[in-house]
Amino acid sequence: MPGEELRAAATSSPQLQPPPSPMDAAEDGGDEEAQVWDQIKAEAKRDAEAEPALASYLYSTILAHPSLERSLSFHLGNKLCSSTLLSTLLYDLFLDTFSNDPSLRSAAVADLIAARVRDPACVSFSHCLLNYKGFLACQAHRVAHKLWSQSRRALALALQSRVADVFAVDIHPAAKIGKAVLFDHATGVVVGETAVIGNNVSILHHVTLGGTGKFGGDRHPKIGDGVLIGAGATILGNVKIGEGAKIGAGSVVLIDVPPKTTAVGNPARLVGGKNKPRQHDEVPGESMDHTSFITEWSDYVI
Amino acid sequence: MPGEELRAAATSSPQLQPPPSPMDAAEDGGDEEAQVWDQIKAEAKRDAEAEPALASYLYSTILAHPSLERSLSFHLGNKLCSSTLLSTLLYDLFLDTFSNDPSLRSAAVADLIAARVRDPACVSFSHCLLNYKGFLACQAHRVAHKLWSQSRRALALALQSRVADVFAVDIHPAAKIGKAVLFDHATGVVVGETAVIGNNVSILHHVTLGGTGKFGGDRHPKIGDGVLIGAGATILGNVKIGEGAKIGAGSVVLIDVPPKTTAVGNPARLVGGKNKPRQHDEVPGESMDHTSFITEWSDYVI
Amino acid sequence: MPGEELRAAATSSPQLQPPPSPMDAAEDGGDEEAQVWDQIKAEAKRDAEAEPALASYLYSTILAHPSLERSLSFHLGNKLCSSTLLSTLLYDLFLDTFSNDPSLRSAAVADLIAARVRDPACVSFSHCLLNYKGFLACQAHRVAHKLWSQSRRALALALQSRVADVFAVDIHPAAKIGKAVLFDHATGVVVGETAVIGNNVSILHHVTLGGTGKFGGDRHPKIGDGVLIGAGATILGNVKIGEGAKIGAGSVVLIDVPPKTTAVGNPARLVGGKNKPRQHDEVPGESMDHTSFITEWSDYVI
Amino acid sequence: MPGEELRAAATSSPQLQPPPSPMDAAEDGGDEEAQVWDQIKAEAKRDAEAEPALASYLYSTILAHPSLERSLSFHLGNKLCSSTLLSTLLYDLFLDTFSNDPSLRSAAVADLIAARVRDPACVSFSHCLLNYKGFLACQAHRVAHKLWSQSRRALALALQSRVADVFAVDIHPAAKIGKAVLFDHATGVVVGETAVIGNNVSILHHVTLGGTGKFGGDRHPKIGDGVLIGAGATILGNVKIGEGAKIGAGSVVLIDVPPKTTAVGNPARLVGGKNKPRQHDEVPGESMDHTSFITEWSDYVI
Amino acid sequence: MPGEELRAAATSSPQLQPPPSPMDAAEDGGDEEAQVWDQIKAEAKRDAEAEPALASYLYSTILAHPSLERSLSFHLGNKLCSSTLLSTLLYDLFLDTFSNDPSLRSAAVADLIAARVRDPACVSFSHCLLNYKGFLACQAHRVAHKLWSQSRRALALALQSRVADVFAVDIHPAAKIGKAVLFDHATGVVVGETAVIGNNVSILHHVTLGGTGKFGGDRHPKIGDGVLIGAGATILGNVKIGEGAKIGAGSVVLIDVPPKTTAVGNPARLVGGKNKPRQHDEVPGESMDHTSFITEWSDYVI
Amino acid sequence: MPGEELRAAATSSPQLQPPPSPMDAAEDGGDEEAQVWDQIKAEAKRDAEAEPALASYLYSTILAHPSLERSLSFHLGNKLCSSTLLSTLLYDLFLDTFSNDPSLRSAAVADLIAARVRDPACVSFSHCLLNYKGFLACQAHRVAHKLWSQSRRALALALQSRVADVFAVDIHPAAKIGKAVLFDHATGVVVGETAVIGNNVSILHHVTLGGTGKFGGDRHPKIGDGVLIGAGATILGNVKIGEGAKIGAGSVVLIDVPPKTTAVGNPARLVGGKNKPRQHDEVPGESMDHTSFITEWSDYVI
Repeated sequence: MPGEELRAAATSSPQLQPPPSPMDAAEDGGDEEAQVWDQIKAEAKRDAEAEPALASYLYSTILAHPSLERSLSFHLGNKLCSSTLLSTLLYDLFLDTFSNDPSLRSAAVADLIAARVRDPACVSFSHCLLNYKGFLACQAHRVAHKLWSQSRRALALALQSRVADVFAVDIHPAAKIGKAVLFDHATGVVVGETAVIGNNVSILHHVTLGGTGKFGGDRHPKIGDGVLIGAGATILGNVKIGEGAKIGAGSVVLIDVPPKTTAVGNPARLVGGKNKPRQHDEVPGESMDHTSFITEWSDYVI
Repeated sequence: MPGEELRAAATSSPQLQPPPSPMDAAEDGGDEEAQVWDQIKAEAKRDAEAEPALASYLYSTILAHPSLERSLSFHLGNKLCSSTLLSTLLYDLFLDTFSNDPSLRSAAVADLIAARVRDPACVSFSHCLLNYKGFLACQAHRVAHKLWSQSRRALALALQSRVADVFAVDIHPAAKIGKAVLFDHATGVVVGETAVIGNNVSILHHVTLGGTGKFGGDRHPKIGDGVLIGAGATILGNVKIGEGAKIGAGSVVLIDVPPKTTAVGNPARLVGGKNKPRQHDEVPGESMDHTSFITEWSDYVI
Repeated sequence: MPGEELRAAATSSPQLQPPPSPMDAAEDGGDEEAQVWDQIKAEAKRDAEAEPALASYLYSTILAHPSLERSLSFHLGNKLCSSTLLSTLLYDLFLDTFSNDPSLRSAAVADLIAARVRDPACVSFSHCLLNYKGFLACQAHRVAHKLWSQSRRALALALQSRVADVFAVDIHPAAKIGKAVLFDHATGVVVGETAVIGNNVSILHHVTLGGTGKFGGDRHPKIGDGVLIGAGATILGNVKIGEGAKIGAGSVVLIDVPPKTTAVGNPARLVGGKNKPRQHDEVPGESMDHTSFITEWSDYVI
Repeated sequence: MPGEELRAAATSSPQLQPPPSPMDAAEDGGDEEAQVWDQIKAEAKRDAEAEPALASYLYSTILAHPSLERSLSFHLGNKLCSSTLLSTLLYDLFLDTFSNDPSLRSAAVADLIAARVRDPACVSFSHCLLNYKGFLACQAHRVAHKLWSQSRRALALALQSRVADVFAVDIHPAAKIGKAVLFDHATGVVVGETAVIGNNVSILHHVTLGGTGKFGGDRHPKIGDGVLIGAGATILGNVKIGEGAKIGAGSVVLIDVPPKTTAVGNPARLVGGKNKPRQHDEVPGESMDHTSFITEWSDYVI
Repeated sequence: MPGEELRAAATSSPQLQPPPSPMDAAEDGGDEEAQVWDQIKAEAKRDAEAEPALASYLYSTILAHPSLERSLSFHLGNKLCSSTLLSTLLYDLFLDTFSNDPSLRSAAVADLIAARVRDPACVSFSHCLLNYKGFLACQAHRVAHKLWSQSRRALALALQSRVADVFAVDIHPAAKIGKAVLFDHATGVVVGETAVIGNNVSILHHVTLGGTGKFGGDRHPKIGDGVLIGAGATILGNVKIGEGAKIGAGSVVLIDVPPKTTAVGNPARLVGGKNKPRQHDEVPGESMDHTSFITEWSDYVI
Repeated sequence: MPGEELRAAATSSPQLQPPPSPMDAAEDGGDEEAQVWDQIKAEAKRDAEAEPALASYLYSTILAHPSLERSLSFHLGNKLCSSTLLSTLLYDLFLDTFSNDPSLRSAAVADLIAARVRDPACVSFSHCLLNYKGFLACQAHRVAHKLWSQSRRALALALQSRVADVFAVDIHPAAKIGKAVLFDHATGVVVGETAVIGNNVSILHHVTLGGTGKFGGDRHPKIGDGVLIGAGATILGNVKIGEGAKIGAGSVVLIDVPPKTTAVGNPARLVGGKNKPRQHDEVPGESMDHTSFITEWSDYVI
């Protein structure tokens, strides 16, 4: 996302420098957060002016708020509330958690940048903040995970349930998720209790990181940094998907996948063969490069 | 759906001739629309009398309205509203769009007939209008697509997001969808920005028409007229699924599929082989013929 | 779930004996129901005391009610209501049906026990009652099925539609489902009109029990007792999955699967070969044993 | 209200005999209740047919219910619910109370007949049931009073508060109210803790039956049978308004008023003089005779 | 309200000529309406910019709408809706009625101007449109009256009931109300079935125009043009309050009041005496002159 | 309210000393606030245990909150929200204002104590906090007044309007109200823009502090400390009601009332005569002594 594009997207906003890569962004926290929040407000202001029918929504959800954490807490509270879990209660809960833990805020910012950089359909930060159920589910999960780590488990599980109902995204609150993670489309994603997802990962819809039976313990996949998991892939058991690996759409993965290799098929096999799998140089979770992937696949299939 | 069946389904309604095929139906517009709307009201009236617990719902959603477009706008407004996007605003938006574009109304009628003809579980037009999330998501998409084409993009994207939340159907507003299209069950369907879907297509749940990377441009599948796509199929990239082709359930398709052929498997291959694929005569999107398909598949597997 | 675990989970409750297996449980009805209800109240009381933010929800949904059927009816009424199908109407409908049919109540209890015993992430009965969309969708289906069997079809279909919207679980009201059934995660499950599911079955998310075409009649799978169906499996047509069979995640099954055998892959094949498939001794639907399954699979793949 | 009028009002209903006077009606309970309920349903059915825009409301509130107590409980539950006192909870509470105490039901029926007979603007029983805030506030009070008498005081006070918010009618749950009571228009009525209201009383809007200070004990008015209290009258302290007395609009009454006499003015005095007040023969609470009253008043004023 | 004041109130709006008197305004319809609507939008835009917390409300209620009738219909629909009378239904009803009857729109505009001119606390047109329950109740009444005149009585009475619940203003739909009427504060106003209110009338809160008994027929007050009725006044029976008369606060009026005279007290008497009442020159309903009134009163009292 | 009574009312709470008089209470701020909040929680806990049907309400509104200001903000937010003014927005607004202005909190505490001490029907602090519309309207007014003083007038007027709709209490945000004020029953109270209400005042329902015409400026009553205003009294114009004065129910007051005197009647006159009005020693706003008042009145009348 070069600077020109950003400027084109929100002409009325102060000019921004091209954003650093999402993971860097997460490091210097507050500045990045302020910059993105300014951009979001500029986008919302532009859209509210152009589209009166949407202005009320944009004001209530973004423009009425003094900070990203308030806007996000309001939006999540409204999305996830029910007749028995009131929006004010959820708003309070989200706001308290986001306010007290800057790492959750910087992770949210990194996720926003990740979506904006990696997804060509993501036309603006505000588009992601308002409309991406994967983004919203992930932020709600971060709060649920925080509650879980504070032994507030019943509340964490209630949040998980609301996210599963509203977004059809089912992430156990104990699961650990890194920064700059993109859940694209997100419908049907299931992530189990002992799963771990690294930084800079991109996961498409209908992906399962599932367990292997009725006994507890460490039983879910570990996803390394920079991994890309295609739509509908099912990864089961305490397997390790190495850094920068790529998992093909529709794959069923029951094996470890080495770093920077590609696994495809049902059951999944390594492209290039088990003993000497082909390696790539890119970071698939960032590059989202499906094109070469298709070639590889074709090679593999023939 | 022979005439007897229709008459049996709604004995209190004026006798209807057997409906023409959905695509013909779409041509002569108003008459077809009036006929289907009369049928819907007759069905709703019969059900309201038989089931007092449902009568309020049937009156508010169907019987209180003077036209299909009002009923549909009301129903979509109620389904898709949220605490920050009020039902009256959405109702207004849907009603304006349906009122001003007869092609959207005839497409809705063609979709209703398609569901009634092709899905044996679809017992009446009103059943589809009230209960089929695929039907409702598709009509909301048509409105979002119209808004997109008018450069009202923020509003179009907000609609897409509501449909994705409420129906778990995620169709980019830029995607082009023909008439007489059946999204059966529909949960988990994802259709990307540059995808095109022809007329008389039937698409089962969990189907993805996805992109191939982080760069924009034309990057999603083109689905020809009369295609049938089985449950859970994933089609990726700017590939062409020819007219009357059939895609097996659970397939992962990364290749062009010639007209009237069948692709199955993960990765998908053509039944009969790449060089001389077997051809069928029927229109799978209309015939929904999975039976012979099973035979073909078995042949292929063995 | 040994007795110690139960006691640990709810220290303030009267000590319970280790529960019998779910199916036995279903036999002696009332006692089991009372025991589980006592346990649920004890869990909710403990959680309400520990977590004031959740207390209101726990009181309104569990602790304010004198019986499981009232709590469940209230919870389903609130979850499934809409602006045109009011919570009071649904509450009345659920309560009447659960009150008049003890078999629905004992099935709900057996389902609760099944989740508690088989799913290591299910930390308490109340967690399942409150948060498991698969459990809630299944109980709503039982009521819809009852209505269907009383020829109250329009109402049954309206319920199906609400469940499909709210939980992304789409079960035709005519489908027959046994007791002690676990729908784990449940998002995206589709079960067709003539499908039959036996007792002690466990079904993961994204599973389809689908039909084969546009003609009515008996066209959906029959799932025997004790079957385990992995995530994303698609079973199509009037095929028979024998007692105690196991279906691998992501499989596409178009064939009969003999009792106590395993089918995997797309298209699915029997582990050990078509003619002499390997047989296991366990009841997969109860044991949830994915571990050995992975081994089998690896064997098969190589 | 002669029989012809009743028949004219609801031609599709079975012919009713002219209703006995409200108080007699209250005696033979069930029959009267069934007869009035049949009439209400006939009226609602007629209105639903004539006015599709109202049909949904009439079905959900009246026609979907098998009995008056269910319809009334549903209606009160919906009117009085809030985001923290859910409609299902209130519905349950009203239904339980009305079901278990036939005297509350016969009082409601007597109140309906009283409104129908005494108020020329009351065109039907269903009009009163649906629209008269005085009627609805009174029925909710009867339930609150029952709860109060069972020492469920916090719940009774919460109900009082909801009625005060929603209908602007503030009746302390300890106040005792007879049968066949008409609160006409009702806005602003305040009735204190130790007030007693007899049978066949008619009370207009803005009427206060208030106390006299900050000490507890018996400190509110006692209103005899058949009394009529005009709009805006304020009666303060433990005074006795005798049977069949009439209180002029806008009066401020701090004295006992003997039976069948009239008090008017601020401060109120007896028409005819303190020592030999004029007496009337009618029952003002039933006859609602303001005409002669005007004459009396004029006499008095001059 | 001189032009300067108007301009001061909304500096960003195009300069308006000082409005003609409300009744003149009502004559030339469309222009006045457009001018006031422009002013309302300018005010709302100014307030939305100054107060982000209110912007969402101002956009949804005013700025998202292309015309006053849509804004008003939306606002009334949201204010008056309930769980059984949906906002979309009411919106439709209001919009249809306002669209088809220009006299209702010009009456609304005249009422807005009346409030702005006569009430020093009315700081802007938008303040009245958004916040004056008397204004809103009156517009809803105009629609109910229209329905009543079309024999849609059940619907008219349902509207009356909603207005009585929500605004505590109870106006029978048959009552006739002129233009440029100000209901100030409005709580507790009751207007009976055969009452008539002229043009340029101002009525304070707690005012009753009531009937005289249980028999039908013409039994409520007739209020002439330009009348001012003080807070808490009760006028009973088919009496005539002459043009330009003034009724003191708290008065109880049972007699005809000649034009341009003043009635005060309980029971009310004419200032200056029955035979030669003092006459004033102003139009009290427009001048709202309570000051001289106090002097007169004092004279009268002494 | 002696200490024993307090202890009897909430046996499970820590023992409290008898509260000082409300005005003293307001002085030492935080301690008083903490003490009253502890008492409220103890009462709510006791009621929640005794009444499961109310527990959810008591937890969501009181027990889930760490402070009185949060509980009050939540309660007001839920009471006053609408479909276009969301509860989260109002909650935020109330919480910010109460948090930043301790004088608003101590005024609320003083009002709670005033209700508890003066109103024999006020059985507990929590009863007042939850159920007294006068208390709630007054606290919302304090926030609106704060906003008004910050020139956030549009928002202040929107709040006034919500309070007028929901509680039928219409207080202009510019009006100044002291501490330890009791609005008893409160329905129909109207307080104008330039009105001032002192400390320790008690005001019954239907009381108007109104203006005198269409011109701005200082035009509403000034109510001194310790005044008691009876139900339905109307006080008009910039008159001065002296400290400790008493205004009879139903009075219409257009004159200054000297300190510690009583005005009654329509038009109101001073008890004892204009030139040498009788004086009392008590503070009527605190003593609420209507008993001697009746005697005075009787004397006066005769």
